[in-house]
Amino acid sequence: MNYRMIGYTLGWVLNIEAICLMLSAVTALVYGEIFYLKYIALCIGACVVFGVALTHRAPKNKAMYAKEGFVTVALSWIVISIFGALPFFLSGAIPDFIDAFFETVSGFTTTGASILRDVEALPKCLIFWRSFTHFIGGMGVLVFLVALLPLSGGSNLYLIKAESPGPSVSKIVPKVRQTAKIFYGIYISLTLLQVILLLLGGMDLFEALTLSFGTAGTGGFSILNSGISTYSPYVQWVITIFMVIFGVDFSLYYLILTRRVKDAMRSEEFRAYMLIIISAVAVIVLNCRHLFAGLGEALRHSAFQVASIMTTTGYATTDFDLWPQLSKTILVVLMFIGACAGSTGGGIKVSRILIMLKSIGREIKVAAHPKATAKITMNSRLVEHETVRSVNVYIGIMSIIFFSSLLVVSIDNMDFTTNFTAVAATINNIGPGFAGVGPTRNFADYSMLSKIVFSINMLIGRLEIYPMLLLLVPRTWKR
Amino acid sequence: MNYRMIGYTLGWVLNIEAICLMLSAVTALVYGEIFYLKYIALCIGACVVFGVALTHRAPKNKAMYAKEGFVTVALSWIVISIFGALPFFLSGAIPDFIDAFFETVSGFTTTGASILRDVEALPKCLIFWRSFTHFIGGMGVLVFLVALLPLSGGSNLYLIKAESPGPSVSKIVPKVRQTAKIFYGIYISLTLLQVILLLLGGMDLFEALTLSFGTAGTGGFSILNSGISTYSPYVQWVITIFMVIFGVDFSLYYLILTRRVKDAMRSEEFRAYMLIIISAVAVIVLNCRHLFAGLGEALRHSAFQVASIMTTTGYATTDFDLWPQLSKTILVVLMFIGACAGSTGGGIKVSRILIMLKSIGREIKVAAHPKATAKITMNSRLVEHETVRSVNVYIGIMSIIFFSSLLVVSIDNMDFTTNFTAVAATINNIGPGFAGVGPTRNFADYSMLSKIVFSINMLIGRLEIYPMLLLLVPRTWKR
Repeated sequence: MNYRMIGYTLGWVLNIEAICLMLSAVTALVYGEIFYLKYIALCIGACVVFGVALTHRAPKNKAMYAKEGFVTVALSWIVISIFGALPFFLSGAIPDFIDAFFETVSGFTTTGASILRDVEALPKCLIFWRSFTHFIGGMGVLVFLVALLPLSGGSNLYLIKAESPGPSVSKIVPKVRQTAKIFYGIYISLTLLQVILLLLGGMDLFEALTLSFGTAGTGGFSILNSGISTYSPYVQWVITIFMVIFGVDFSLYYLILTRRVKDAMRSEEFRAYMLIIISAVAVIVLNCRHLFAGLGEALRHSAFQVASIMTTTGYATTDFDLWPQLSKTILVVLMFIGACAGSTGGGIKVSRILIMLKSIGREIKVAAHPKATAKITMNSRLVEHETVRSVNVYIGIMSIIFFSSLLVVSIDNMDFTTNFTAVAATINNIGPGFAGVGPTRNFADYSMLSKIVFSINMLIGRLEIYPMLLLLVPRTWKR
Repeated sequence: MNYRMIGYTLGWVLNIEAICLMLSAVTALVYGEIFYLKYIALCIGACVVFGVALTHRAPKNKAMYAKEGFVTVALSWIVISIFGALPFFLSGAIPDFIDAFFETVSGFTTTGASILRDVEALPKCLIFWRSFTHFIGGMGVLVFLVALLPLSGGSNLYLIKAESPGPSVSKIVPKVRQTAKIFYGIYISLTLLQVILLLLGGMDLFEALTLSFGTAGTGGFSILNSGISTYSPYVQWVITIFMVIFGVDFSLYYLILTRRVKDAMRSEEFRAYMLIIISAVAVIVLNCRHLFAGLGEALRHSAFQVASIMTTTGYATTDFDLWPQLSKTILVVLMFIGACAGSTGGGIKVSRILIMLKSIGREIKVAAHPKATAKITMNSRLVEHETVRSVNVYIGIMSIIFFSSLLVVSIDNMDFTTNFTAVAATINNIGPGFAGVGPTRNFADYSMLSKIVFSINMLIGRLEIYPMLLLLVPRTWKR
């Protein structure tokens, strides 16, 4: 294990966090929140001290392999969450550190689950920071680092592999660093586009920025206690469309940019993703139309909620906990499916579901004809046996973590629906669930133990299991 | 597809059902239930007419392959359920055919879920038949057929494979037919032992037989509206112990009979099964002790409920829906784990869970060291790659069927906990769930559509997916 290199990378992550926190400091200055500015400055200082200490001398041996990649990513996310929680904790805005940590992990992992009973009581600078963590976490802090820093020795690939969502990493251009730059370019451009469209809808810059951060990262922290319900239909539609956009594999946007629109449209995952969204909206509109003033309103709320849950954003324009059970169950199923691989969204991912379905089809064929050979293809390409296996194992591990977490949080004696959807909403990085953690409620009533479990689940979900799991396995630390 | 041979086997299955129904006719005679005797005789007649028509000439080509095996098993189970439902339906005891079919499928699949609001209103002969379906379904009607009939041409193996639970069929002796005979011998002997022990506890023969059938098949139909709660602690303990016994892989009993006790005790599945039961009981005793008069009572009810759910029997001595959430969640998790492969119990099976856990361990190792090779062993033997894959796919298919069923039954607008545990209780062949389908409630309030879905789930669960799935896949029927 190359500890020097792990430390060095962690140092750079802290340096980047210091720079990010400076935006929050600017917000504090703009809104004259001097009391909070002090604490933010203190946190910047803390990040810089540790960051510079770890990065002032680059290690000679920059080699990093799979194991180091996973460990570095897991540690980075834990470290940025601890340092990112300090502004909330030190300033007393969130008096309990576990709560502050939960909220920050929820931000970075783009979950959007909250322990705050009154979001509007927070100062603007902390609301900004809270939403900005979504933006940082959406594309990934190490992807950003790889785009910025000339790390060599294969470090790039393993870091990106460990941080990026989906069953396989598609390098759209031969160089990893170039890929990271392109992805961040698309990410920032799309976010700016959304900000502009929201500004055109009459929103002020602060709102437009924070809500766009929450959309871009598929995070879902809202800045009002009423969520997104009080905004105009125009704003709600803009957010709906951008949630769907950020749930798509970013390499498709690169294909479109390089005029390979046909190739992009041929993506089986994209087609399945759109098909699921459209079908879910259609059924929910039919199932819920009596709850709304007209078909237009029913369509708007259905589309918003489906896009929000499917992309694992977690914004809400209406209390979907009051919907009929069929619509609610559709949302629960969407929670697990999640967005496309290579997007900023969470969940199992549409491509994994597709691969699983195809491998099931193959298995049925083989069961009937034991001597038959059947191959699985995706986008007309053969899916490697290793990928199929890892997808099935992935779903297996997720199930075990899911049920283990369910057992631990049930100690708090909340009802089954609350516990089940709370674990689903955190492990799939969504945010709200149903009943006790429904869109108008929050995670405040859970015990500290449960909040720690939820925090670990959010990290496991965002980093897709392996980085966190390897961190906890003793074998990783053996020579 | 050898249709002649499929029809021939179905005919024999009906002949056997006619013989089984005769026991019910005897019960009607004993208790003087002449009104019902007529209908039972009518059903016996129907079975015999179709049975003899299909079996009067043996097909020349007796060859059967995997596909025929699966299709025959699936059709057999549907046919015995349709004919088995007739006594309830024709006599008017259960006026709706779908209800009668649900109840019969629930019986044969050893689920024990009921739509009857008042079990005690049934005549003795139908209560007997209802419990006896558990006994027939527990070990399997085709296993019985194979033990009886000299079918040749590889039919035996494929039929047994398709009907027996677990990731791989262990032939304890080289000949399939001999294996089937030994299993039935053990099954009947253990059931008789339980009957004797219950008789010694002061029970009458009718009660002892019906309750033993429900235990042996891990079925769970009780004959009183109060379930097992009003019986003496002695009876409850006897049933607890026998539920655990019938949840064990029967090939271990064969090892013990042939004086290989050490080999039997080395079974990893058996050890895990006992470990899970003991741990679950320990936690529930601690979690629920305040609900009971003393530690002894707490232990008795905890052990009974854990054994009942883990072995997928579904008997209840207390309303565990009133337990704290932790204990309830433990039971939900046990629902999915299920009993040992090669037992009469349902669920995913302990051995599948073990193989999944081991394959996860291997995957973690490979993730950290991409060049490492890791093998999975069970009972010191290498687990074949095919078995691991099929286990993972099995869990994948189960998840998809689970969530699809959840969506359909949610149309009835019951609450999430009810729907979730109702699907879990049927697909894992348990019986009761929580909330609306808790131990003091039943499935009567669901719509006909949901009852059909539950019936299919029970069959899918009992036959472990493939037979039912192949029946529904158009490719099966192509030449």
